[in-house]
Amino acid sequence: MSQTVSQSPAVVLLSGGLDSTTSAAVAKTRCSRIIALTIDYSQRNSIEIEAARRVAKFFQVERHIVFPLNLRLFGGSALTDDIDVPKDTPLTTIGGTIPVTYVPARNTIFLSLALGLAESVHADSVFIGANALDSSGYPDCRPEYIEAFQKMATLATKTGVEGKPIKIETPLITLTKKEIIKLGTSLGVDYSITHTCYDPAKDGKACGHCESCVLRKNGFREAGVDDPTRYVENF
Amino acid sequence: MSQTVSQSPAVVLLSGGLDSTTSAAVAKTRCSRIIALTIDYSQRNSIEIEAARRVAKFFQVERHIVFPLNLRLFGGSALTDDIDVPKDTPLTTIGGTIPVTYVPARNTIFLSLALGLAESVHADSVFIGANALDSSGYPDCRPEYIEAFQKMATLATKTGVEGKPIKIETPLITLTKKEIIKLGTSLGVDYSITHTCYDPAKDGKACGHCESCVLRKNGFREAGVDDPTRYVENF
Repeated sequence: MSQTVSQSPAVVLLSGGLDSTTSAAVAKTRCSRIIALTIDYSQRNSIEIEAARRVAKFFQVERHIVFPLNLRLFGGSALTDDIDVPKDTPLTTIGGTIPVTYVPARNTIFLSLALGLAESVHADSVFIGANALDSSGYPDCRPEYIEAFQKMATLATKTGVEGKPIKIETPLITLTKKEIIKLGTSLGVDYSITHTCYDPAKDGKACGHCESCVLRKNGFREAGVDDPTRYVENF
Repeated sequence: MSQTVSQSPAVVLLSGGLDSTTSAAVAKTRCSRIIALTIDYSQRNSIEIEAARRVAKFFQVERHIVFPLNLRLFGGSALTDDIDVPKDTPLTTIGGTIPVTYVPARNTIFLSLALGLAESVHADSVFIGANALDSSGYPDCRPEYIEAFQKMATLATKTGVEGKPIKIETPLITLTKKEIIKLGTSLGVDYSITHTCYDPAKDGKACGHCESCVLRKNGFREAGVDDPTRYVENF
């Protein structure tokens, strides 16, 4: 085993989407023990949870926790309420403004739970697939946000105070979707088991028109990798 | 109505204990609309939830959300597992080291949820009853931690990016238990409805010996205020 592989577990936030799956693949190269954490935040898209289970199995994780979190109690976002998901947004305008699919403080809530889990299981790192370039303009996907979370997390925890802070790892933070797909493909990721669409059909097929689908399709095309996604229509 | 009273709601983290109740009393002087958030983190001490409901009623809050959060799925603390709660720790040693009652990243998880709720309901502040001096040495009760959380929260949220960050309010952060009790008493708080004990009897009476009871009893004595707590024994 390579000396660079950590013996401590890593907690990986796993939605079952393309980004978190690639982040898990990177974690797997650095840590032999992966504890996957999927937050079931009562999104209407429960197909994501099934995808997360497939991905966790694919990576043979030590433990996969599907953590129920009823954010519907708060309201305020397309992913938890009944606001229409925007369709066919031109690629050039994605990321320009904060979209209606923004869930208030989502990454902060997810990272905080991952931090608590990491300290409980003596993990030395938390992996999140956040990326700034091709994300949809969410404030909590930016490098400066992650840096601020790291500082806060170090002050927040017993391990941090004792000089061994849990590291927030963002292996995709500066990558484009194209680069993420190339990276994952080089690490052997099977993207056919992932799920990205905000508004899938009942059989799990992707709509092909929401911002997530638009970014994903374009990423595969630019990466020159066959897109294994099952879409409602053929593109 | 005083001009200093905000028309936006405030989210108040409310455990039903002495500190969070006093924090709610301060919030009430600054905001006419209070949304109370109680995190039910599957602690064995569910008597706290009943106390939180009493306190929410006392302050006539606009909305009281009891948010289920199964931290038992993570493990790792006396308040969620079956580790014995320490008893009769001398006052002089409380706060010297991080105790076994520490719940990993607890305030970070709670504040993150409160932040998400605050953004969802267009609140301009989040109140938390954290205090550094008489707390039990938890890292996430220190002013430097709260400052770091504030910086992170401003970068994390749509409101923060738009220049109207949600303010994390810690009205008790530098107060001793004595000062907290004096402040709450001056604001008309009825402490008999609050609950502090880590290890209460089945009828809800406080043990009088855990760190929380020791700090609370001492606070009332030093404040010169009659202690309305119902203890298992008479002290």
